[in-house]
Amino acid sequence: MLNQTAEYALRAMSCLAYEPDRLMPTNELAEITKVPPNYLAKVLQSLAQADLIVGRRGVGGGYKLAKPSEQISLLDVINAISPVERITACPLGLENHAGRLCPLHRRLDLAAKQTIDTFGGISLKDVISERDASRPLCDTGRTAQVEMTINRG
Amino acid sequence: MLNQTAEYALRAMSCLAYEPDRLMPTNELAEITKVPPNYLAKVLQSLAQADLIVGRRGVGGGYKLAKPSEQISLLDVINAISPVERITACPLGLENHAGRLCPLHRRLDLAAKQTIDTFGGISLKDVISERDASRPLCDTGRTAQVEMTINRG
Repeated sequence: MLNQTAEYALRAMSCLAYEPDRLMPTNELAEITKVPPNYLAKVLQSLAQADLIVGRRGVGGGYKLAKPSEQISLLDVINAISPVERITACPLGLENHAGRLCPLHRRLDLAAKQTIDTFGGISLKDVISERDASRPLCDTGRTAQVEMTINRG
Repeated sequence: MLNQTAEYALRAMSCLAYEPDRLMPTNELAEITKVPPNYLAKVLQSLAQADLIVGRRGVGGGYKLAKPSEQISLLDVINAISPVERITACPLGLENHAGRLCPLHRRLDLAAKQTIDTFGGISLKDVISERDASRPLCDTGRTAQVEMTINRG
């Protein structure tokens, strides 16, 4: 349902949410999220343009979240890549549908609203805080490493 | 949320659902649905490949639904263009996520399920039967024409 780029963006944002204070280099992020580095670089540019992450170039550079993970919804991330939009006017431009969508487009609009409500109601913090056997995006070694970092923090 | 092609397909299928027994020429369908004819021709090919419509070439040719409109869900139409897929395995291929999705992908999978349930639960007949001030895809002149056809039928 989501396009690949949006799914990559969600991986990257979840990963950054674990270590909100550290600038994470693109290559490290690419390795953890298993996204091709060049592709990821473009995704990160889109996320930065949407003010969801901030970056610094050069040695010691990288990206981190622009605000706390509880203030960033999955919808914010998706919208930075390919916005989920309500249907507010007849897509065919029919005059007699101007005031009110036809049954087809009303149903499509309701489905868009449902998706917006679903993803808008989940923050990155919700995702990374969920107690579970597996942590988002983290394989065993990485999980241990991140957990050590968090416990030290 | 839906891509443009899937939305075009839904327009075309809704239109064909009004006159299920008539082969409707692509050009007529393009005019009613306001989809560029060449683009629509490709959409119709995809719908035919998915066995949702049947076509006949040449003079008097065109397309009609392959089965009754109550047996075709909006999901069937969408899936013929760009399938909505559940996430059944970790997209990163992480070994320790093999048995169970991480919280991020579990939530994305739930959203996919929600979309599948929503669109799977609405048939083309539901859409065209809905009593409403406006009929799907029909401007005033066309509405009158279709209603006459239906009333005569």
